[in-house]
Amino acid sequence: MLLDSLFLKKLSPDTFFISNWHNIGYLTGFWGSFGKVLLFKNGEIILFSDARYSLLAHKLCEKNGMEYVEISPKDNFWKEFLERKNIKIVGIEADHVTLSQFQRLKKVFGKNVVLKKTKNLMENLRKIKSEEEISLLQKSAVLNDLALQKTIPFLKEGVTEQEIAWIFEKITREELGAEKLAFSTIVAFGKNSAIPHHSPISQKLQKNMPVLIDCGVQKNKYCSDMTRCFWYGKPSVEWIYAYELVLKAQKEGMQKIQTGNSFSDPDIIAREIFGEKESYFTHSFGHGVGLEIHEMPSLSALSKGKFLKNMVVTAEPGLYFPEKFGIRIEDMCIVQEKQNPECFSKSPKDISKIVLC
Amino acid sequence: MLLDSLFLKKLSPDTFFISNWHNIGYLTGFWGSFGKVLLFKNGEIILFSDARYSLLAHKLCEKNGMEYVEISPKDNFWKEFLERKNIKIVGIEADHVTLSQFQRLKKVFGKNVVLKKTKNLMENLRKIKSEEEISLLQKSAVLNDLALQKTIPFLKEGVTEQEIAWIFEKITREELGAEKLAFSTIVAFGKNSAIPHHSPISQKLQKNMPVLIDCGVQKNKYCSDMTRCFWYGKPSVEWIYAYELVLKAQKEGMQKIQTGNSFSDPDIIAREIFGEKESYFTHSFGHGVGLEIHEMPSLSALSKGKFLKNMVVTAEPGLYFPEKFGIRIEDMCIVQEKQNPECFSKSPKDISKIVLC
Repeated sequence: MLLDSLFLKKLSPDTFFISNWHNIGYLTGFWGSFGKVLLFKNGEIILFSDARYSLLAHKLCEKNGMEYVEISPKDNFWKEFLERKNIKIVGIEADHVTLSQFQRLKKVFGKNVVLKKTKNLMENLRKIKSEEEISLLQKSAVLNDLALQKTIPFLKEGVTEQEIAWIFEKITREELGAEKLAFSTIVAFGKNSAIPHHSPISQKLQKNMPVLIDCGVQKNKYCSDMTRCFWYGKPSVEWIYAYELVLKAQKEGMQKIQTGNSFSDPDIIAREIFGEKESYFTHSFGHGVGLEIHEMPSLSALSKGKFLKNMVVTAEPGLYFPEKFGIRIEDMCIVQEKQNPECFSKSPKDISKIVLC
Repeated sequence: MLLDSLFLKKLSPDTFFISNWHNIGYLTGFWGSFGKVLLFKNGEIILFSDARYSLLAHKLCEKNGMEYVEISPKDNFWKEFLERKNIKIVGIEADHVTLSQFQRLKKVFGKNVVLKKTKNLMENLRKIKSEEEISLLQKSAVLNDLALQKTIPFLKEGVTEQEIAWIFEKITREELGAEKLAFSTIVAFGKNSAIPHHSPISQKLQKNMPVLIDCGVQKNKYCSDMTRCFWYGKPSVEWIYAYELVLKAQKEGMQKIQTGNSFSDPDIIAREIFGEKESYFTHSFGHGVGLEIHEMPSLSALSKGKFLKNMVVTAEPGLYFPEKFGIRIEDMCIVQEKQNPECFSKSPKDISKIVLC
């Protein structure tokens, strides 16, 4: 967690009401199913939860120098609390608070409290990773690499997409100690690889089929994300050509991931490289990754903003030819000062290494 | 899915914009990561998604008699679409749309479209289960029962909470074909059972320890939920007394789950039975279950509304004595017409059956 007090000082309300689960966990280390946080401009934090988490939250707050307050079910709990603390303006998370929750907050905070909408308050903090977070993201990526390498030998004739997805998951959980997957593993054989978000089915692997695996794990709460393509048998010339093109787009796009460049630069260069095939690249170049698998920034051709040091993002161009095949090559990397990013993912992607059997 | 056109006719806008993932899946059978739905009062449905889901969504809509429209990234897509269809008032899901999304919808729908906030539109439909849903919920509960029974023999001295949670998960996925867990399994040994939402740790099972397992699976998208307590060794008199009290509260509370009664009745009777121990019952009596593990209705002492036929809810009173032990007994059951509910969960809960070794 990187609570930059300079960042907070630039913001307008003195007090922020944080209700998003990831943001609460990021700020406090509390990951219970029910919690709220008041964050003050001076960095002070009050964690709120209910009786179910009393023991846990008390211990945590004692350890981390935060105040813990148990929410009572009585109607005027919040009104009384804010009055007692003399809080009159509260910033709320407009990207997470629903219209119904907003109505309810207005009611329970009382008429004397003004709610100010803030956008991406915590997300802007979370974009830039602390040294501790970088180390955790790297560990998560190493685990992901290792799990994929241990899964590849199971790619044999007759195995199903679902079986491979489950083998990958078991390896991550049982052998490598991941908490869980970062997202449902995509395993696609043959023409299923043309569906970018394909869910594994009972499709069996046959000779001379392309394979796409998009996988990620969560370790110590931090996510990893990587995609590799393989060919089982002897690859077609058409597939090799498309693979090399995607690899080139990924490599050149990734070189644009450095301080000073715009978030849109990698997507734009990838599309240039795809040329007439550009319309088969049906998603954006990448996204931030951290506590969540999709975080800020988004790396699309329309994205605004520039890369800053220690952002961790994916680089994942792809080409999808309906009813034929699809290719995506994805790595996780960290933005560096005016030089190419450091790539966390280490699984080979050279054509000679991804042709199986 | 139970799209009651009578229900829709009672509502005010002619067109509803559905953006919640579960509600979209419920209405259309589309479970992609990006989708929107326009639902019309006459029952007509238009599904929207992007190029990644083009193939899948086209096939699904053709099969289910819905229209599919691919969202183009151009700025005025929605404005033009709504104008072409002559749609002037759109109901939106106030419980799911965030303040930021609301601002964005106002912008992309254009000034000529009025947004009307609706509350629990789909959730009210989803509360009452169709015959197909009941059958799926029952299957999910049977699978959950079976997985727990297969897990119990692994409760041996030295096994950890984390190991038991993983054994349960593996059985559900590998042997019994569940898609995934409905929620992270709670396995709590000894005083950890006093934390209602405990996350499994490396705590080892020792002789003369209480055990609490709260587990659920997802099968064909439908969730199950059940909690059982065990004693490993010779139970203490104090624990037996508390167990019998919770069992009584569950039994009598469950008898209140029938048409004509209020959602609050089970919680109120359970608290009466707990008497002076009532303050150790730190959550509510139960909740609806379906596509999500927590759905409407909520069965707390403050809940408004009455049970209707074919609602599926949990009955899960508990007592939690900090630093000592906790007990929760939970079943899933279906509301019937003026008679006791039918219980889906079949795992034994008689004291003679839950004392192990």
